[in-house]
Amino acid sequence: MIHRGVLEFSTKEGISFIDITKEVLSVIAKSRIREGTCNVFLPATTAGLLLNEKDRMLLEDFKKMFMLIDENKIYHHPSNAFSHLRASMLRSDVTFPIADGKAVLGTWQSIILWEFDVEPRKRSVVVTVTGE
Amino acid sequence: MIHRGVLEFSTKEGISFIDITKEVLSVIAKSRIREGTCNVFLPATTAGLLLNEKDRMLLEDFKKMFMLIDENKIYHHPSNAFSHLRASMLRSDVTFPIADGKAVLGTWQSIILWEFDVEPRKRSVVVTVTGE
Amino acid sequence: MIHRGVLEFSTKEGISFIDITKEVLSVIAKSRIREGTCNVFLPATTAGLLLNEKDRMLLEDFKKMFMLIDENKIYHHPSNAFSHLRASMLRSDVTFPIADGKAVLGTWQSIILWEFDVEPRKRSVVVTVTGE
Repeated sequence: MIHRGVLEFSTKEGISFIDITKEVLSVIAKSRIREGTCNVFLPATTAGLLLNEKDRMLLEDFKKMFMLIDENKIYHHPSNAFSHLRASMLRSDVTFPIADGKAVLGTWQSIILWEFDVEPRKRSVVVTVTGE
Repeated sequence: MIHRGVLEFSTKEGISFIDITKEVLSVIAKSRIREGTCNVFLPATTAGLLLNEKDRMLLEDFKKMFMLIDENKIYHHPSNAFSHLRASMLRSDVTFPIADGKAVLGTWQSIILWEFDVEPRKRSVVVTVTGE
Repeated sequence: MIHRGVLEFSTKEGISFIDITKEVLSVIAKSRIREGTCNVFLPATTAGLLLNEKDRMLLEDFKKMFMLIDENKIYHHPSNAFSHLRASMLRSDVTFPIADGKAVLGTWQSIILWEFDVEPRKRSVVVTVTGE
């Protein structure tokens, strides 16, 4: 059995984040799938997914880590090369198990969408639940 | 068909590693699934999965790479921010094919669990085999 | 339903890249699966997969980013430690949705195989399509 949900988010210009855990979990609930896996996919090249703790202080630390990719360096690609490079520090896809109808995520694992682009964007996230 | 196995590991404080390949393969064998995929998921935010060569010398090189995230810098998040940041250099999930009842892994690909936290931890790894 | 295709590529010594999107899409088309997911897996430890924009200028910027892992440093592992470390900046697996028989990839998302090894290599990529 396969159930798909498409979520839409409006981001602020980067570096900024949105916690999308609740929305992903609601697609899983709607699917009525009890055992299987959930694939979360972000069809974007200047944003990324992070599975980590949603702590305001920690997210500031992550922000500084992404800034290791310098905005002021000279790049070949015009305007937002650093947005692409930062996105590659994260990933576009995450797949985790579903057991007894519930996402198997760690206590501190939130699904966080990081925007790295230089302008606010509309981002869609495709959630595919597969199983029984 | 879906088969799930949960593995438990005791880690030493970070930066340390455990090769979990054998245990993952035994879940696949138990599943009796011949064709499909295997998802390995680590529900943790201060540890990560690496698919690479298990060579003692190389693992020392990896350790030094993780130390590029400095322990002595001042972070916003108390006590173990660098453990979270190091974990984000790796991933929480890996999905690979199963063909003819066997994991399709490269000759040198071992599944390595890296602990980055400041204390020894109990880590569970959820292995989900999907297929026919 | 499961359909698997194995693709073969000849790479130039690293740092070099091949766009493998077209070949992956042709495995999906052959599968005749309409709804599901596609797992792309690279059984290698000195090469990696990147899902990002295939723009010649941007790929030069990526190349420089990979070079942050210095070739001239002294490593424990002989000859190609930096190839392994660079590979770990990317991933060996990507899983994305299939909807209405088509890969759900963003407008700018190409599947790019990066070679980091010190010699030309034959690389196989295993594409597993799962669904209905």
